[in-house]
Parts: sequence; structure tokens; C-alpha cells
Amino acid sequence: MQKTDLLDKLQEIVGNERVSASAAELYCYSFDASQVRGMPEFVIRPVSTAQVADVVRLAWEKGIPVTARGAGTGLAGGSVPVEGGIVLDMSSMNRIIEMDFDNLQVVVEPGIVQEKLNLALEPYGFFFPPDPGSSAMCTLGGLIANNGSGMRSVKYGTTRNYVLGLEVVLADGTVINTGSKTIKSVAGYSLTDLFVGSEGTLGIVTKAILKVRALPRERSVLLASFENPELAGKAVVKVLSSGIVPSACEILDSNIIDAINTYDPKVGLPRAGAILMFEVDGTESAVREGIAMIEDACSSLATGIRAATNKKEREEIWAARRLVGAAVSRLDPMRTRVYVGEDIGVPIKEIPRMLHKVSEISEEFDIPIMTYGHIGDGNLHTGMCIDVLDDKDWEKLNKAADKIHRTAISIGGTVTAEHGVGGARAEYLELELGKALDVMILIKKALDPKGILNPGKMGV
Amino acid sequence: MQKTDLLDKLQEIVGNERVSASAAELYCYSFDASQVRGMPEFVIRPVSTAQVADVVRLAWEKGIPVTARGAGTGLAGGSVPVEGGIVLDMSSMNRIIEMDFDNLQVVVEPGIVQEKLNLALEPYGFFFPPDPGSSAMCTLGGLIANNGSGMRSVKYGTTRNYVLGLEVVLADGTVINTGSKTIKSVAGYSLTDLFVGSEGTLGIVTKAILKVRALPRERSVLLASFENPELAGKAVVKVLSSGIVPSACEILDSNIIDAINTYDPKVGLPRAGAILMFEVDGTESAVREGIAMIEDACSSLATGIRAATNKKEREEIWAARRLVGAAVSRLDPMRTRVYVGEDIGVPIKEIPRMLHKVSEISEEFDIPIMTYGHIGDGNLHTGMCIDVLDDKDWEKLNKAADKIHRTAISIGGTVTAEHGVGGARAEYLELELGKALDVMILIKKALDPKGILNPGKMGV
Repeated sequence: MQKTDLLDKLQEIVGNERVSASAAELYCYSFDASQVRGMPEFVIRPVSTAQVADVVRLAWEKGIPVTARGAGTGLAGGSVPVEGGIVLDMSSMNRIIEMDFDNLQVVVEPGIVQEKLNLALEPYGFFFPPDPGSSAMCTLGGLIANNGSGMRSVKYGTTRNYVLGLEVVLADGTVINTGSKTIKSVAGYSLTDLFVGSEGTLGIVTKAILKVRALPRERSVLLASFENPELAGKAVVKVLSSGIVPSACEILDSNIIDAINTYDPKVGLPRAGAILMFEVDGTESAVREGIAMIEDACSSLATGIRAATNKKEREEIWAARRLVGAAVSRLDPMRTRVYVGEDIGVPIKEIPRMLHKVSEISEEFDIPIMTYGHIGDGNLHTGMCIDVLDDKDWEKLNKAADKIHRTAISIGGTVTAEHGVGGARAEYLELELGKALDVMILIKKALDPKGILNPGKMGV
Repeated sequence: MQKTDLLDKLQEIVGNERVSASAAELYCYSFDASQVRGMPEFVIRPVSTAQVADVVRLAWEKGIPVTARGAGTGLAGGSVPVEGGIVLDMSSMNRIIEMDFDNLQVVVEPGIVQEKLNLALEPYGFFFPPDPGSSAMCTLGGLIANNGSGMRSVKYGTTRNYVLGLEVVLADGTVINTGSKTIKSVAGYSLTDLFVGSEGTLGIVTKAILKVRALPRERSVLLASFENPELAGKAVVKVLSSGIVPSACEILDSNIIDAINTYDPKVGLPRAGAILMFEVDGTESAVREGIAMIEDACSSLATGIRAATNKKEREEIWAARRLVGAAVSRLDPMRTRVYVGEDIGVPIKEIPRMLHKVSEISEEFDIPIMTYGHIGDGNLHTGMCIDVLDDKDWEKLNKAADKIHRTAISIGGTVTAEHGVGGARAEYLELELGKALDVMILIKKALDPKGILNPGKMGV
């Protein structure tokens, strides 16, 4: 089929104004926030499930790759069309279809932005807990495709825990529904769980039934300072294994502390080898109890403990945490933060060991590594900054990232706790998953025998 | 292959004393607690993953069905070998391999009994939350295969929420590992979630990494009485949508109340159209707050509210709840409780409607239906008793159960919230799941192309 014929057919399905084929527009869809690149041939902006199904069916017939994209905030190239073909920009399908608070549920289209959903829920006293750093931009479809999470997953879990059901367009254009509004069912395989986190390689999500939670009445924040990250890691093991469930448990190492204090001096984080930021939410008395228990658990290991006494101070602390991504790049104006090897996860009790290994790797490859992240989940974000015009810096970065990945795997961890595999980390899946990767490939072949859905991703 | 040759080979793998082929022994494996029946040719009691893998590989080569079985407490025939072949009795693989409390995890073999695991955890201050009525007998393997839950799932979720990783023997005898001790990972499809709840049709679980939780410091129980089940259902919607998370939320209808009071008069449940039993757990103050909030939410709908003032009263109330299964059969000595159509689930806000429909169905088919169950999850157990020697009673029972199933599906519910599909409910999956059933079949064919794993179950 000629490209112009295909363009005609696509325009027939979604209308002329919803198809892009100009080089300038295509370029905008050729990357995300990772180093993965790939140029699409067409970008389609569907407005309905029927349009998605028709486009996918056409792609199936012609054997053309189809890659779904939300806001393009991904850090692994999950939405980048590495084998060309069609990009489905789902951002126009962004409605809240139903607010069903008697069932503690909402039904949404995948293009809705996380923060917009939460702004719509807030007046009713509810929220959707998964809160990645990109909340202000990322879409629910992206969260579902990557099983996204964020700071509060230590208490609230990941996106998976909030997806009750999905409408999915399969590789041949068939539309199926998985799950339902019934919160507990064992009728059949958990296809919902299979599609969540499959990064658009098995189907394209066009609708989701999500659980929401009642907003907590109260929150409180505690900062604990430590001589070094390993001691902070030990404190985390102690807090969590004593049964406390904080609503956030974050680590900032000394470089990150400096970066934040440099970026915004009025934040004034205490100087320390590492800081743990704990948040507890719930009723007033539960929060008071939780904070006291954390203080108690940390006291023998910390050099200082400071509780946020009021809402303003609490918000300043979280604002500081949210600055990290931007602040990292401010440490040295000649260097740029590059997202490679940045999302490892390890078992909780291996955190001190992994933190120690990271500092060894930093020395070995002579590259500064700043560590922050959701330490309460064992999820560490290792930030590396390089001169992006220097090939040797790239080499150091890639070698350090490779070693970080292999070290995480060797101690029972993962190369990606929340950012996704995409094209960036696919090469490690065989090492991490072993023969389970073969099962993934069998499933991929069964559901997408022509391999048109987001090819080149996740090692399948 | 001759049956005697096969027997020789099986004896070679597991030793003579771990193979049964006598009619008397085989009979014991031909049923569970449902109406599904099927006679195996061999029963094997493996003690290691290697033995399971060798048996499955042999079965794969010869095309012989293999059905795994835990304690046989299932209510849907999941462990019944309806197409004959080999039953793998997993109850000898019952070790706790590791207690890893720094990670809040345990590693177990599938044959361990739920209650034994919890007794082993208790001295350390931890527990494994899923608690089906059969806790004293059922195995973890059965819980995993069925994604079992029970009374506390309204707060703690189902077995799925506690399985971090599995060792699984696939249809051809390959052993894979899914997941790990790392609590958050997005590296690959969630195969763990695919195997959980797949009832042994995709692989046989030989090891599991499970999350455990710290035992709550305090519990409290509240009984609320209502004029009828529909009003109780409305109270449940009100409690849950106001953000309260009780650790149990159970309903007993008037028949069940009578049955319990008849079975054990000293329990002395209040006579009412329906009773809701709420439990709240957590810290002392959180429990006090939770109970007060539930009391408040129920006050305008209930005819009476009674809080258990001490541990003894609380335990008596739960003992009464646990009596239900036995008590149901005491109402009429000529009738026997039959587990058919007993496990529907509906969206929370449809509970009052479903309860009303159940009473209509009871009248239409002239069969008493007693309702109890985990109403906080929308999960209703409908108990029917018949004279099992009377064909007409069976006919009424089956018709009523069929209508209960179809009604649940028609209002967005499920035919099985926690007991499983097995052979008992497979016929409803197409109606409930639509084209998603085709995806299940594709996955089944991809992972078990010869169809040897638990054939005749789940509609695949």
C-alpha cells in the first residue's frame, strides 16, 4: 500500500485534522524524556474507541506498527515509535466518563492528566493515589501502561492496585473489556493485571475503571538526618519492619541536599549525609501516633529529627522534594541530568548494601551519582549529570548505568521499579527474568502474532 | 504407553510410597466441597520442585492431564481431575522456607496450611491476611490458585495483593520464577498476577514469596441490626463511601441469625431482618475513631447498634460468624446445604438491589435462600438447603442458582468473587467476560498447547 493511500484511509477514519504526516509534527513524537528515539510515519489523534479500533484494524491488515502515546513524559522510550509506523496520540480522549462515588470509583478515558483527575476529585473528598513526579503532565493511560507509582506507593501501592477494569483494543482491532465495577472477582485470568504494565505491547487501553480513595483528614511530615545513606537505609528497614506504614518515605543524599539548597536557598534543608522524609496521613490521632513511632524507630540512628509543625512547613518540604529533578541539573551548569540507569529497585533490607554499591560505582567510573527516591519501596533514583557534548562522559555514564543495573539484579532487585522497560532497559530483561521472559514472548505472540503493537519494546 | 509402564516411571520419579493407584485412594481425590466429580488414574505426592517438574514433563510427553490439589476444600471443583490423569497432591510440600521479616516477607511451599502459617508468624507479630472460612484446612497453593480471600479482604485485599513472586512449573516441565523480593518492579508483564487465580491451568506453583503484615494492636467489633437486608446494604454503601475502611464488614440475614441462635443458643444474636458485623483494627485510637464513625454512619438506618465491649464478646461474635457454614444445615435436619450459586459479587452500590433480587428468586423457585457474606466487598454467599435425595429439589436449586448467576452478571457483577470458576461455573464465563474469554483461551493455548494442565476448567 502506498503511503498516500494509507493517509487517505487514516483521514477517512479520524478526519483530516486528526492526522499528522508533516516532518515537523512527526518530530515532536520521535522522543520522550529518555534517550530512545524513533520517527513515526503518521500521528493520529483519535477521539473514540471506535476510531482507535479502526486504526488498529487497518494497521493489522497492513502490518504497520502502532504505538500509543499519552503525554510523552516516559523515561524509557515506551511511547517512542522505534520501528516507525503510526503513533496514536491518546491525549484527546481525556474525559472523565463517570464519577461513581457510591462505588468509590471513576471511569476515565486514557488521555486524562493525573493532576486534572485529582483536581476534579478533590471537591468531593476523594483522590487517585499514584503520584509520579510527572503528575502535572502525565496521563492515566501512561500510568496504566507503565504501572506508574511515585512517592505515596509505600502506603497506597501502584497504579495496578487502582485499576478495576479496562477497555482494550487488541492487535486485530477487537475491543474487549476486562474486570468490572465489582471490586472482588475471580472469574477468569486477571487480564486487567496483564494489560497494566504491558506498555502498549498487548493492546491499547481506551477506557479504565479506577478505584479512588477518600482524602486523608490529616498529614504530617518528619525529616530525619543521617551521617550517610547506609544508616538512612537501616532506619528505613527498622521503621517498615516495625509495622509502621508511612504515606511516603523518601531519601535525599548529600549531593541532592546541596542541589536543593543551591536551587532554592530558603528551603534550608539540614546538611547531612542523607535525609529521610517521612509522611504519615490519616485521622489526626493516627498521624500523631505514626509520627511518634517513626521518631522512636529512627532515634538511635539519626543525627537529627525535625517534624514539620504546620502545613506551610510541610508544603515547603514537599516542594523541595519535587524540585529534585530540576535541582540536580543546577549543581554544575556545564552538565545535564541524563535519565539512564535511574530507576533500580531492591528488596528493602538490601537498601543499605545497594546504596554502598552505588557510591563504589560512582568512584569506579569517576562520575558523581546523586541518589534520591522512594526508599520505602526499595526504589532508588540514581541521578547522573554529564557534559552531553563529551563522548567520554557518555561512555562513563553508560558503563556506570550498566553496572548499576547488573548490581541491582545480582542482589535480587530490578532494573526498573516504576519508570518502565520500553526500549531503554529491554536488554536486561533476560538477565533479570530468566525463562519467564520466554513466557512473556509466548503471550505477546499469542495476542499480537504480527508484532504490530509497540514493537521493539520490553524484549518481546 | 501402558498404565503399568507409566506407574513405573512415576514411581521412579517420586518413589513407590508417593504414588497411589488403588481405587480407594483415588476415590478420595475425586471430589472437593462442590458437586464436581472426576476420578484420577494416579495420585502423586511430590516433595520437591524437581519431582513436580519431572512428573509434569512426563505428562507433557504422554499427553496426560495433570491437576494440582492442596487440601481439596475448594467449592468449584478446581482440584477435581474431571478428565482423569494425574493428581499432584501438593500437601507434602508444606515448608516455610524462609521468614524474612526485615523485608516483611516469607517464602513458603504451596502445601502449607493457612492457619499453620499464621501460627508460625504470630510470635513474631506478623500475619498473612487472606482468611477464607477454610483457613484451618486450606493450603496456600489453593489460595494462590483461586486468589482466595475471606472476611478481611475489605481492608486487606485478596491473596493476589500478598504474592510477590512465584516459582512455577510450566506445562512442559520448565521451571520459571516470576517476581522477586523487590516489592516494586515494572520489569516485564506481571506474570505473577497471571498465575494467581489461574487455578492450575497455566502452571503449577511450587514456591511463593509472600508479603506479611504486622498484627494490628487492637480490634473492635460492632453489630448493627436492620429491618431488612436492603437497608443493611444501604448502610454498607454509606459506611464505605464515607472513607471508613473496616477490617471486616459481614452480613447475616434473618435465616442465618436464626440458624446461628439455634445451633448455639448462648451466642444470642439480636433478632433482626439482617445484621451487619463490622470489625475495625489498628492502633487503639484509630479503632476508637473507626467504630465511632461506623456507628454514626449506620445510626439513621439501623434499629439497633451494639459494640463488643471486650475481647471475649468480640471472639464470641466472630465464632458465631464462623458457625454459619455448619449452622445453615441445622435449620432443617432433612435438608443439606449444597454449594451451588453461592459466591456472587456485585458492585457495592448494587448490593441492596441484588439482595432484593435474591429474595425474589427465593420466592419464584420456592426455595429458602439464606444470605451472608463479605458484603463490604460486594460478595454475597447465598446458601440453599435441599433434600439431596429429591430430584425436584435439585432441579429447583439449579434453576435458582442459574438465575442468581445471571442476575449478578446482568447488574455488572460476577458469578464468583472468591470461590473460583473450576468446573462449577465455567459455563457462565462467556456471558460474564465476553470476548475477554477468547484472550484467556489464546493465553492458555500459548502456555499449554497440549491442554494437559487441569483440563475442563475455567472455560479454557
